[in-house]
Amino acid sequence: MSRYHIFSPSDAIDYARRHGPGLGTELSAEEVGDGNLNQVFRVVDEESGRSVIVKQALPYIRCVGESWPLTRERARIEAGVLLQHGRCCPEHTVALLHQDAGLSVLLLEDLSAWRLWRQALLEGNAPAGAAARLGHYLARVLYHGSDFGLASTAKRAEVARFSNPELCATTEAVFFDDPYRDHQRNNIAPGLRPLAGQLWRDGALKRRVAALKHRFLCDAQALLHGDLHTGSVFITEDELKVFDAEFGFYGPMGFDLGSAIGNLLLNLCGQPGLNPGEKGRAEQWRRLEEVLTLWRVFHDEFTALATGCADPALAEPSYVEEFLVQVWRDSLGYAGTELIRRTIGIAHVTDLDGIDDAGLRLDCQQNALRLGRELILGAETCADGNALRALLAAYGTAPRADR
Amino acid sequence: MSRYHIFSPSDAIDYARRHGPGLGTELSAEEVGDGNLNQVFRVVDEESGRSVIVKQALPYIRCVGESWPLTRERARIEAGVLLQHGRCCPEHTVALLHQDAGLSVLLLEDLSAWRLWRQALLEGNAPAGAAARLGHYLARVLYHGSDFGLASTAKRAEVARFSNPELCATTEAVFFDDPYRDHQRNNIAPGLRPLAGQLWRDGALKRRVAALKHRFLCDAQALLHGDLHTGSVFITEDELKVFDAEFGFYGPMGFDLGSAIGNLLLNLCGQPGLNPGEKGRAEQWRRLEEVLTLWRVFHDEFTALATGCADPALAEPSYVEEFLVQVWRDSLGYAGTELIRRTIGIAHVTDLDGIDDAGLRLDCQQNALRLGRELILGAETCADGNALRALLAAYGTAPRADR
Repeated sequence: MSRYHIFSPSDAIDYARRHGPGLGTELSAEEVGDGNLNQVFRVVDEESGRSVIVKQALPYIRCVGESWPLTRERARIEAGVLLQHGRCCPEHTVALLHQDAGLSVLLLEDLSAWRLWRQALLEGNAPAGAAARLGHYLARVLYHGSDFGLASTAKRAEVARFSNPELCATTEAVFFDDPYRDHQRNNIAPGLRPLAGQLWRDGALKRRVAALKHRFLCDAQALLHGDLHTGSVFITEDELKVFDAEFGFYGPMGFDLGSAIGNLLLNLCGQPGLNPGEKGRAEQWRRLEEVLTLWRVFHDEFTALATGCADPALAEPSYVEEFLVQVWRDSLGYAGTELIRRTIGIAHVTDLDGIDDAGLRLDCQQNALRLGRELILGAETCADGNALRALLAAYGTAPRADR
Repeated sequence: MSRYHIFSPSDAIDYARRHGPGLGTELSAEEVGDGNLNQVFRVVDEESGRSVIVKQALPYIRCVGESWPLTRERARIEAGVLLQHGRCCPEHTVALLHQDAGLSVLLLEDLSAWRLWRQALLEGNAPAGAAARLGHYLARVLYHGSDFGLASTAKRAEVARFSNPELCATTEAVFFDDPYRDHQRNNIAPGLRPLAGQLWRDGALKRRVAALKHRFLCDAQALLHGDLHTGSVFITEDELKVFDAEFGFYGPMGFDLGSAIGNLLLNLCGQPGLNPGEKGRAEQWRRLEEVLTLWRVFHDEFTALATGCADPALAEPSYVEEFLVQVWRDSLGYAGTELIRRTIGIAHVTDLDGIDDAGLRLDCQQNALRLGRELILGAETCADGNALRALLAAYGTAPRADR
């Protein structure tokens, strides 16, 4: 195992040359990391135009510095998740070409010619098929990483192998703790303070958030991506690949689904500010359809996969459906926590913060907080897509008479 | 670390002499294991009368032989559980005096002068306080091994450390799989076949069993004992200690509670055969009270401990109560699976099989199967002790007019 040292651009080039497939001798490297945790080099073969990504975990949080240490174990986790998910769904998982555990380095296929799904949603030209492709990815990776798809001894060993306490603790703090109290890590626009204060005093809401956090802490249903927002997904017109899997662990399926759904709904909430008028309403309508498509494809493909379940008890078909009802409810609840934490927590999204007009921005942020609360409180009674449609009607997505 | 070899009595004496506190030179050893998995020596200092237990895991299931291998990892798990539970509740956990990981050997305090709780229940002279003591034990060990009592990073590390796939797989097969299908491992009295066949065709029941199994597979709520029947509990008139913790793992709290409750109810179901007439009815009444006491003490002490919970989300008091409602329901469900698996599965109990009269025995066994089914199906709607009292009325425990 190599000895750890922080890569310079020329280290990245050396590593890419040794382990990258078909790279020549004239290589250049550029640091392209826009994330908060790692350094990421794009290494290009100037002659052939071929390129790869060299991603290295630093022993601290990059955007903060050495004062906030963070385990390099996350590189091992990320490599393991990408390999595992890549086995189940290679068409939608970024390809891992090589890894070096000692250096905490991953060599990845370069998708920088693709677009981030979040960016396409912001530009109003996201391809219609992306939601279905993500539903397909989730059905395959969550099924095959669960007790439906694995023998229990193998699955229990995987739960231990993907134990990821430090990164999970970060998620727990930013999703379930900070936004529900007045904490210095929060980033709250002054106009949102009154509404945030209401959330902090809302006992019914905090009880549901406790239940969602407890499930996140305990319920090892499947090997999750763990950070599945729309900025963790690269797309083209007819392709989709998920990347950035260092938050992976064994957790509740609804967390991955809810993170994705929550980000579609953040974009929905931002539309009146991003695209005032008719265009924004049409985009909102598309976001709702994407949420329902994502769920439908996930549900139908998971159900189909479960007909091959080898577990004598879990194979009971009526149980599979009962379980998926619970996953739907969890997904809505986790989506609600995503809406809230992205509005008043430490890490925001452009879908809201990128709205130029301060008044419109505040309106959209307030809507996101209200919708988040409604989803968390309504998750247990929001039985299906139609119920979700009705719940979202107040947010501009009701089908108009002329549709 | 010592090299593994199977202990002879003189090996056990050597080991006890080296590591046992205050033992002299004149030691004798007797094999006293009546379990199915291990060999157990009682080593006695003939002069002082002091004694210890030397328990060694064999690399196979003892009662079957070398053809059924079983990981010696279970000795490491058992030592870890006893240490952890002993820290939380030394008064009710058998003391671990020494361990040798290489030899898969544990040196334990000798409780053979005490009685097994099961035996006392069979003899009709179990002390009234035992159920409350077990409730106290469960509140302390389950609270302190859970996300209520541990920081999440520490708890996630514990989940991985106590990963126990092989022994869990045994539990899964004998609790949740075999009794619900016609399997060669089952041990079914000929007169029970019709009723067993009904269970195998009962879709509603199998759906609930799937949910209970799935929770057992996924839901890492606390460090469980994992095999908490009345034969894993030594008692005196005013003491109680739990032993045999090799099935320990991170699982749902209701499984430990349900195993204990299920065994009290197995004894209840056996009473018409064990003690026909008035005495049996009085014993049944006592079992019901013990079940309710065990739960009440567990519930109240867990609730009191949770006032010190340091987790910002889980500390919400209304959530603690909501969570305990789910634990109650799980407990009834798992108790139901214990009743069924001990009646038609591989491992039976004397509370039923020890009934001499064949007709009475069959009646009692049928009652156990029916009650098991009712508990599993009724768990989600059986809201409290009064509801359980009503459910059990049909099994002879209704308060009579003259009480």
